[in-house]
Amino acid sequence: MVEVREFRQSDWPIVWAIIHDVVSAADTFPYDPAMSERQARETWLFSPPGLTVVAVDADRVVGTAALGPNRPGPGSHISTGSFMVAAESRNRGVGRALGEYALAWARREGYAAMQFNAVVETNTAAIRLYERLGFVTLCTVPGAFEHPSRGRVGLNLMLCDLSSAPVQSISATTE
Amino acid sequence: MVEVREFRQSDWPIVWAIIHDVVSAADTFPYDPAMSERQARETWLFSPPGLTVVAVDADRVVGTAALGPNRPGPGSHISTGSFMVAAESRNRGVGRALGEYALAWARREGYAAMQFNAVVETNTAAIRLYERLGFVTLCTVPGAFEHPSRGRVGLNLMLCDLSSAPVQSISATTE
Repeated sequence: MVEVREFRQSDWPIVWAIIHDVVSAADTFPYDPAMSERQARETWLFSPPGLTVVAVDADRVVGTAALGPNRPGPGSHISTGSFMVAAESRNRGVGRALGEYALAWARREGYAAMQFNAVVETNTAAIRLYERLGFVTLCTVPGAFEHPSRGRVGLNLMLCDLSSAPVQSISATTE
Repeated sequence: MVEVREFRQSDWPIVWAIIHDVVSAADTFPYDPAMSERQARETWLFSPPGLTVVAVDADRVVGTAALGPNRPGPGSHISTGSFMVAAESRNRGVGRALGEYALAWARREGYAAMQFNAVVETNTAAIRLYERLGFVTLCTVPGAFEHPSRGRVGLNLMLCDLSSAPVQSISATTE
């Protein structure tokens, strides 16, 4: 059973290992593949109004999410989130648990929507999950992501409107 | 005649005055309206591969642009730009000179496109200018910007493909 809880400093070694793996693979995140540990801390560890969480399965950290306002000032009523799951724990509901937690958090914090700015269009597992959670793709920026094996592929802008009723829960592991 | 040149440290007082005015008005940029001078420096002054420029009219700085890659790593072949014009110098071709300079810079640096992530949809003067420069709106995120008088309005994602021939120059002040 996957549980999601707030990040603690003692989680950092495993969270950094997950980030390092995902970022070096360079096939799902528009981050610098050579990102240093210090840059990863600055990119991923948020203090309020942002929040960093981890997904825990049998006391092991298997995924993480970084949540917060998508833009400052007049754009700060829209939230955003980034999600990473350890390679050996994929396809086991970890991303789903993190996504449901993120949307529940955003509703609770009063955000009007959650926006993903750059979902790689070949990351179909993530896109399918986000669609099940209630996200829609507003547009795709063609060729905006240099994929290591597929060449230039698109980046989707995805949005989940939080002003309407939530999509019926597809899991009982959160909230 | 408006000329565009690289930013120099001695330009900062007037550039900061322009940024402060634009950001406090809070009607065109999703920046913190209370942005400090230090934050403004970090947000606006880019070193390579980015570039900050100013528009100069009769030796007076009347506008500025901040240019660079839109995202790191696998997204770094797409450029972005932000433009600000002093209130008393609007509707005089300053934005056009900055926009043409930006696109010429992006072509020269080998970017595949220039992307604007968040153009306020009520900023019709800017949108018309960008369209004349060759940008198209790929989508509008509804209600993503809290406008001080109009309430929640949309943010446009705009893109100019640089792989095709340039739009015929509409001004002789750049290049």
